[in-house]
Amino acid sequence: MKRVVLVGGTHGNEWGGIYLCQKWQNTPEIWAKYPFQVETYLANPRAIEVNRRYLEEDLNRCFRSSDLANHDLSSYEAQRAKVVAQDLSGCDFLIDLHNTTSNMGMSLILSREEALDDPLMLQLCAHLLQQDALVRIYYMPQNAKDSPYLPSLGQRELTLEVGPMAHGTLRADLFFKTEQLVQTMLTFLADWERGEAKAYEGELTIYRQLENLDYPRTPAGHMRGMIHPQLYGRDYRPLYPGRPLYVTFEGLVLNYEGDETVWPVFINEQAYYEKGLAMSLTRKEQIPL
Amino acid sequence: MKRVVLVGGTHGNEWGGIYLCQKWQNTPEIWAKYPFQVETYLANPRAIEVNRRYLEEDLNRCFRSSDLANHDLSSYEAQRAKVVAQDLSGCDFLIDLHNTTSNMGMSLILSREEALDDPLMLQLCAHLLQQDALVRIYYMPQNAKDSPYLPSLGQRELTLEVGPMAHGTLRADLFFKTEQLVQTMLTFLADWERGEAKAYEGELTIYRQLENLDYPRTPAGHMRGMIHPQLYGRDYRPLYPGRPLYVTFEGLVLNYEGDETVWPVFINEQAYYEKGLAMSLTRKEQIPL
Repeated sequence: MKRVVLVGGTHGNEWGGIYLCQKWQNTPEIWAKYPFQVETYLANPRAIEVNRRYLEEDLNRCFRSSDLANHDLSSYEAQRAKVVAQDLSGCDFLIDLHNTTSNMGMSLILSREEALDDPLMLQLCAHLLQQDALVRIYYMPQNAKDSPYLPSLGQRELTLEVGPMAHGTLRADLFFKTEQLVQTMLTFLADWERGEAKAYEGELTIYRQLENLDYPRTPAGHMRGMIHPQLYGRDYRPLYPGRPLYVTFEGLVLNYEGDETVWPVFINEQAYYEKGLAMSLTRKEQIPL
Repeated sequence: MKRVVLVGGTHGNEWGGIYLCQKWQNTPEIWAKYPFQVETYLANPRAIEVNRRYLEEDLNRCFRSSDLANHDLSSYEAQRAKVVAQDLSGCDFLIDLHNTTSNMGMSLILSREEALDDPLMLQLCAHLLQQDALVRIYYMPQNAKDSPYLPSLGQRELTLEVGPMAHGTLRADLFFKTEQLVQTMLTFLADWERGEAKAYEGELTIYRQLENLDYPRTPAGHMRGMIHPQLYGRDYRPLYPGRPLYVTFEGLVLNYEGDETVWPVFINEQAYYEKGLAMSLTRKEQIPL
């Protein structure tokens, strides 16, 4: 492992990663102790400048191999993705720092499908789960070539999704927890490189992506309801069949109609309203280490 | 009292008031029982369309009499303010529905300096304080002519500031609480008109605006810290001299250096970062009814 990249500002209004990268850029000497190069990288500087998620389209959906190869795509982010790909492709480990308005604590999102077959990734996750009670492993497998996500540029990668925090704001507790968790990751990677990493046994709890749910809508496509108060803020808590999911503006309760218990995440994330995504449903699983 | 106006969308990404106004527009018959005309009004439709606070400048700072008279001001919101003023000036009661990322519950903001000498306003506040444990009275007096705020167009007015809620999202619990509180206001105003309003005696607790505090900054003006975790979310709770106010990105705690106990509000409001406002300090006072 030669090159580890910490990315902030893939979304220009997610300040946790942005301010952490800016802090780290002022103190590059703190990385000297690691047996690999550590870099910070602000992925969408123009979006950061205007404090918006993106200028024209979501940068974190611009990294499919076919899109990177397609020079006809003309949006600002489509251009920017090609520059970011030149800068970061093939780095050994890429950590993309995100924030969410959802109550997702310190979520490690694994989007590479082979992550659960990779001893390093499994051991890293097991280690991080020991470090902070808010850590959760969210597995949403994607074929790397088809993955639209920026971290797919790395040989290994994860997205650290931290919340709840309103976009365009900072929360000191989550800022320092994120900093701590990234340092713990780097220390673990360094120990792994040196063959000194602690080996965990037993099982790992993960939350596997099942499907995305939209808000209730009118035939014309307008929102007709909200997350039910009994579900609001309960990311990674079990949702049982028949329990309240939404409440319409008129006060009608809409229940979860599925057959199996699920564990919702990204409940009420601000940026996902425009994507028609009220929450993602996951299944809680135990993976052998 | 002939005309009461409920305003939403003065800020285009504060969805509570916007979705409530849209709900009410579908059921105008619910207002028939009141002895005055009730109207809903979306103040900045273009900002609502693009889901942003404003297009060019904060509409809710465009209503000084001198600015309304100045036809050289060219921003979209400066134009829009003149249209809104034509539509709403002189209405008998104007209720402007806002949301905040701060933990301000159901705050009634009184910005007209004479509000505390107005028996109707005092009795209305006393009544609403009985209705919901989250109600607080925040008094930030302005001379009506110099007031930059939209509600200053009304003969009487208040801003209902509801939070915590990320902009561009909805929270069902706060949505229904807001709806309930507005209905309670209208019922009280109707009772007052008919001479049937309950008369409260005793004292009213208000929070009077003292000053605004900015975030700690570097000499170049960049943010160098955040709200301290011990203060985060503690709007309307006492802040004692010497207690933590901020923590810098390096972890240095900055304490509140004032001489008197204060009650902060608008702590960490997202939209106020750009205004250089980390919180407003208030003094808790008892006003005789």
